[in-house]
Amino acid sequence: MREIVVIGAGFGGINAAKELAKDKELRVKLVDRRNYHLFQPFLYQVATAGLSPADIAVPVRAFFRQDKNVEVILGEVEKIDPGKNDIVLKDNQRIHYDKLVMAAGAKNFIFNKDWEEHVCGLKSVSDALAMRKKILMAFESAELENDSQKKKSLMSFVIIGGGPTGVELAGAIAELARFSLVQDFRNINPSDARVVLIEAGERLLPSFHPSLSQRAKSDLEKLGVSVWLDSKVTKIEKNRVELGEDAINAHSIIWAAGVAAVDLAGQAGESLEVDLQKGDRVQVNEYLRVKGAQDIYALGDMVYFDDHQLPGTASVAIQQGKYLGRALRALKEGKEPAGFRYKDKGQMATIGRSKAVVQIRKLRLSGLLAWCMWVFIHIYFLIGFRNRVSVLLQWMWSYLTYKKGARIIN
Amino acid sequence: MREIVVIGAGFGGINAAKELAKDKELRVKLVDRRNYHLFQPFLYQVATAGLSPADIAVPVRAFFRQDKNVEVILGEVEKIDPGKNDIVLKDNQRIHYDKLVMAAGAKNFIFNKDWEEHVCGLKSVSDALAMRKKILMAFESAELENDSQKKKSLMSFVIIGGGPTGVELAGAIAELARFSLVQDFRNINPSDARVVLIEAGERLLPSFHPSLSQRAKSDLEKLGVSVWLDSKVTKIEKNRVELGEDAINAHSIIWAAGVAAVDLAGQAGESLEVDLQKGDRVQVNEYLRVKGAQDIYALGDMVYFDDHQLPGTASVAIQQGKYLGRALRALKEGKEPAGFRYKDKGQMATIGRSKAVVQIRKLRLSGLLAWCMWVFIHIYFLIGFRNRVSVLLQWMWSYLTYKKGARIIN
Repeated sequence: MREIVVIGAGFGGINAAKELAKDKELRVKLVDRRNYHLFQPFLYQVATAGLSPADIAVPVRAFFRQDKNVEVILGEVEKIDPGKNDIVLKDNQRIHYDKLVMAAGAKNFIFNKDWEEHVCGLKSVSDALAMRKKILMAFESAELENDSQKKKSLMSFVIIGGGPTGVELAGAIAELARFSLVQDFRNINPSDARVVLIEAGERLLPSFHPSLSQRAKSDLEKLGVSVWLDSKVTKIEKNRVELGEDAINAHSIIWAAGVAAVDLAGQAGESLEVDLQKGDRVQVNEYLRVKGAQDIYALGDMVYFDDHQLPGTASVAIQQGKYLGRALRALKEGKEPAGFRYKDKGQMATIGRSKAVVQIRKLRLSGLLAWCMWVFIHIYFLIGFRNRVSVLLQWMWSYLTYKKGARIIN
Repeated sequence: MREIVVIGAGFGGINAAKELAKDKELRVKLVDRRNYHLFQPFLYQVATAGLSPADIAVPVRAFFRQDKNVEVILGEVEKIDPGKNDIVLKDNQRIHYDKLVMAAGAKNFIFNKDWEEHVCGLKSVSDALAMRKKILMAFESAELENDSQKKKSLMSFVIIGGGPTGVELAGAIAELARFSLVQDFRNINPSDARVVLIEAGERLLPSFHPSLSQRAKSDLEKLGVSVWLDSKVTKIEKNRVELGEDAINAHSIIWAAGVAAVDLAGQAGESLEVDLQKGDRVQVNEYLRVKGAQDIYALGDMVYFDDHQLPGTASVAIQQGKYLGRALRALKEGKEPAGFRYKDKGQMATIGRSKAVVQIRKLRLSGLLAWCMWVFIHIYFLIGFRNRVSVLLQWMWSYLTYKKGARIIN
């Protein structure tokens, strides 16, 4: 056991590779179709013109510069060949593994295929740039539009899904309209923008304590967001969302209502002849070994852990990545690793300027204090010195001036 | 005379609009197909992964937030209708003018149409992002390439044109390879990259004093750049440049050998039935009024001034923009403005870390002192507080660590 291949340079993959790199006898190959590790929790900031992609992305190579036993490979995995212990890239290149770690994450999951072309998701840098363009162009087009119905539609933003991503996007779009853009137009008043957050369940942020769900709702409403609970989307067409009897015409329809494992999970399930779990996830045991496989492990958003599903957060992926790196090193030394145990480090969501909710076991915070904590923790985890300073500076600037720094359409 | 339309939010257009805005009786419409003003002198930094687009772009609207008599219109001008004093946008919208200022700049000019598909130019943000992707992907592909000829081609960068843009790009690519990427690969040595700067004339930077041309050449050579003078490109094919008997196979071929006025100049010439000058430029008189027109003025890179061509620099456009704003205000007051006089404020080009050349009349500087001056002046002119601080910070960080901050491929 010498060759270890890690697929995916997200939170799980880079942490696994970093742990593995400590054993200099191991040869680690880290494969990703992007050349950067992305700080996903800030993707909504790119989508709403607060930050640039490079502020939340670190080149994977730079991250492993000193780890000479780690080779970074830019490539997209086509399939896994468990019979030969190979992975096959899109260009047909084969890479052999003694042990394989799949950490390829999740993708947007829109449960009705017909809706896909009418909504924007938010899982990648290109998603975020497309959403930024859509939002900024909506105001530009509204400025030039004479038809009042069309103008209203252009200035309507519907966000589907009341989890953390939906809440963060709704708050950020409302702030963009009400604070950053408000003085910049002559024919429209950007603060007239309608921002509607739609949730099928009975409260926002269902994984939080109900008191924090309530607080998030009232904070969003103070920003002018309409929050529609118990509202199931029944139909989506171009520029139109229907919810049973209700309907909203909106140029911008944003999907934040769920993800599923990447296609690689399905491919792995096929090769190993095992069924996938909820959201196309692969089943792993308590050692994160994939059901039906000897040398294949998986973690993070693409797995269904043991007999339940862990939250789809960076924290879970980081913990599992570190665990797996250590476990494989132990295995190589002939030791038996202990099973993975998830340690709940709490959860948080930001709503806007000075507004957030934080829950760490019994501790529940909201408002300014929660927001400061959110800023501190996120900046702390944002990998790479430059990004930390650059992002912090841009936030201070945004906070003081209400301006957004990345308001370019291209 | 109340309605003034300015086409283009480059250095010339924004300065003209800012001056015009001072007369609150004037109604100014500033039309651009982009929503941002671009700090063009730093575009090569985006192309070589030093800065992000948002670092060198300011939303045009934000720039005129307080000028309530300025309306910013996002749109592309299709043609000018001098008979009706209208401009016509791509969406057929007509905008009336009493006086029109054309400040739409220049585009890449590749004198052989067959070569266009094989080279990258550098005039827009999308050009810069495409070049960044091309350069970074070349190293990624070389890392995975087994064929030594192909690897050599992937790691070869030919820059055609020895003016400031060519010199700056050659220096920045050489530094990227030799300093920023050097430790990040396992199968290639990025500092083996060939960077070849090709100039048809007998020296680099022909508008500078010969001693500075010589210095730029030797500074580039110290960075490992091959400088080929007196070398005329005779043929460009995919991944191959021929120069008479010589030929270089290179995956990346960069065009920095000249620009021409944007298509709007040609359209204006047609409408007014006047001939264009060198590089498709429109002829203007000493008041910057377009030949053959009563109410149309033009400035910057798209004009041929009086009987000679001024340098295609930001300085010329800024001076002409300010002049024209003041001249039109004077005209409205019934005064006769004086003709435009160009004031030579000197010129500078950077070669790399601590290396630049500066020429201000009799003063000629090179090396670290020139570089500090270049940094200071460029940061000073970089519009918008945030950008100044953000760019300065990223430079300090790059200077101290040799790292590049925007090394993402997307």
